[in-house]
Amino acid sequence: MKVMENLLSERIKSTPPSFVRSILKTAADPNVISFAGGLPNPVSFPQEELLVSMDRITKTYKDKVFQYSITAGIPELRQFIADRYNKKFNLHLDIDNILITTGSQQALDLIGKTVLDENDGVLLEKPSYLGAIQVFSQYMPEFHTVDLTSDGLNIEQFKETLNNNDIKLIYAIPEFQNPTGLTYSAENREEIFKIIKDKNLVLVEDDPYGELRFKGKHLPYIGAGRYENSIVLGSFSKVVTPGMRTGFIICQNKELLKKISVSKEASDLHTNVFSQYLIWDYLMHNDFEKHIAKITELYSAQAQTMLNSMDKYFPKNVKYTRPDGGMFLWVTLPEGVSALELFPKALEKKVAFVPGDPFYINKKNVNTMRLNYTNADCETIEEGIKRLGELLSGI
Amino acid sequence: MKVMENLLSERIKSTPPSFVRSILKTAADPNVISFAGGLPNPVSFPQEELLVSMDRITKTYKDKVFQYSITAGIPELRQFIADRYNKKFNLHLDIDNILITTGSQQALDLIGKTVLDENDGVLLEKPSYLGAIQVFSQYMPEFHTVDLTSDGLNIEQFKETLNNNDIKLIYAIPEFQNPTGLTYSAENREEIFKIIKDKNLVLVEDDPYGELRFKGKHLPYIGAGRYENSIVLGSFSKVVTPGMRTGFIICQNKELLKKISVSKEASDLHTNVFSQYLIWDYLMHNDFEKHIAKITELYSAQAQTMLNSMDKYFPKNVKYTRPDGGMFLWVTLPEGVSALELFPKALEKKVAFVPGDPFYINKKNVNTMRLNYTNADCETIEEGIKRLGELLSGI
Repeated sequence: MKVMENLLSERIKSTPPSFVRSILKTAADPNVISFAGGLPNPVSFPQEELLVSMDRITKTYKDKVFQYSITAGIPELRQFIADRYNKKFNLHLDIDNILITTGSQQALDLIGKTVLDENDGVLLEKPSYLGAIQVFSQYMPEFHTVDLTSDGLNIEQFKETLNNNDIKLIYAIPEFQNPTGLTYSAENREEIFKIIKDKNLVLVEDDPYGELRFKGKHLPYIGAGRYENSIVLGSFSKVVTPGMRTGFIICQNKELLKKISVSKEASDLHTNVFSQYLIWDYLMHNDFEKHIAKITELYSAQAQTMLNSMDKYFPKNVKYTRPDGGMFLWVTLPEGVSALELFPKALEKKVAFVPGDPFYINKKNVNTMRLNYTNADCETIEEGIKRLGELLSGI
Repeated sequence: MKVMENLLSERIKSTPPSFVRSILKTAADPNVISFAGGLPNPVSFPQEELLVSMDRITKTYKDKVFQYSITAGIPELRQFIADRYNKKFNLHLDIDNILITTGSQQALDLIGKTVLDENDGVLLEKPSYLGAIQVFSQYMPEFHTVDLTSDGLNIEQFKETLNNNDIKLIYAIPEFQNPTGLTYSAENREEIFKIIKDKNLVLVEDDPYGELRFKGKHLPYIGAGRYENSIVLGSFSKVVTPGMRTGFIICQNKELLKKISVSKEASDLHTNVFSQYLIWDYLMHNDFEKHIAKITELYSAQAQTMLNSMDKYFPKNVKYTRPDGGMFLWVTLPEGVSALELFPKALEKKVAFVPGDPFYINKKNVNTMRLNYTNADCETIEEGIKRLGELLSGI
């Protein structure tokens, strides 16, 4: 073991352990009601339709769906994405603005690889997506965090952080944020844009949940369509299937995207081409809007059940967010209570959540936790929240 | 553009441009006979059988093949790999020695990420696989190369390089090497093992072509089964389908593999789970050995045709290797002739190859080139070699 240490990179030594994955293992007991993961509800996977598409693409494109392919991703799927975002967000994208990635997680890795040197400044929300913290950590940047409020970023803090530090990359999840479920208001986005518009940095808006809005109306991106080094990340994981690991990068600056593409080539040559054809064929031959509506209806009911149950079973000194979409909500316990310490007690009651710790940079025993409502039916959600309520009433 | 430069990492600036991919674009003209790529022959893809497996896994495992999964890869496929290598190479692997990767290329990236700090010593064959040079370059190591001979590594140089430098990682392709098609002899492997056996380094034996032997018998690995930090890389790209991007890492040291697994999680969470079930199901329900025999028979004939044509059409001062398997052979032109300069002239004659340059560290206008014989039928191969012969006769 001592010998092995000498063979490890500083990078891997500074990568936080895979917190959620180890929690997921603990919560794998089928008797545990788990709000810990971030899994889409499997009833939302269009299995029958995908099987039809598999048959069709294999017969139509034959060996093309099994052979090596180009790094950028198949033009058909990139065109679909460009068209969809152009229409929905009034953008002017073509296929050279799009790079298909092996899930959205890979997009984060490629951006880190292409942009970050050691000690470069990265600005994150506080709290932020733990997978982003993990992957960016591997490039050993200097993290700066800005409080996330119910309206979006704390603007004063944001300005201060940008003024006092050399920030190269901003990473934000403006829509149904992971972990909090919060959404930046239109005004907040506009203020952020005004502050950064003359600055030379890369703005990443991670948007895996944007299609999952069940309340209110879609909001424009902060940077897309108007900020040069704007990047938007999207994914088919939450609206078609996560198992196929198909996400995408939308990048305004084609030269920057070419560089990211070199990192992509070095990382895995290209994304699974069968999956790309499959998802594209599925999108071409089915009513995607109707499918999305079915998912949001499902998640809306599940989120509402969770909130109603929390209103009923949680003590009044426990606060929580009320998301307009996405997959998560965020619970704040009374000050001084450690969610991490509650975790084993919750497991005894056969219910699991993610303690807030891994969503912060170097913070321990915080009084927050993330709950997922997409991967359990309403009855199970109520039962799980009831168990959690019993536990919280004792703190 | 100048502004963008400030936003790029040193890493991406030191990554060589994607040479082969740009060549592949040039050679995409369907009238060009291309020996440039590294594509398996599409007639080798078991398309019918894969379609049957798709139907079966979707009906049997339902949403499991579409959902998020564990980082290590599905246990069923890892068990298959462990069993196969145990039997074939007399090893003692279990599933915790195996990590499924998004193609073999990702394995290289994960190893680089987990092991390499800036300026760490990496020992490569001269010449070596360009994709390895590209991906390791991103971790900005110090490269040291050792001449590859028809027997394997030049042992004197190898010793000297190890003695005079701090080498953390050795990367070798002992079987049907890319680009040369050469194979290390059993004696060479043994000598290498003796030299490194008490040294503290990571030995990577990249073995994507090992199953494709059409002459001679299988040889034991250098390190697998007896060297602590031994890593063997394998892939289903050449024997089932490359489009599915399914490769694997076999690592003796489970603690080291756990660290690589953390890098894997940060990179893309896990490999496409549908592809993993698909390949596993295909392997379970078909005669894999028979399938491999069909491929090697095909490639043997194609390699033989290429060699016969070269004997017939190439001038005598042009030398080439005679591989016992794999996908490539290596041509050495008279000294002072630049293969790179020949390339546009070859394109005029509608034939393409890869000039040797990208297989070396910082070498330009070398007198070597790589030819691939797997992705064209025998008639096309003869015609292409004839055209190339005409060109070479004029140098």
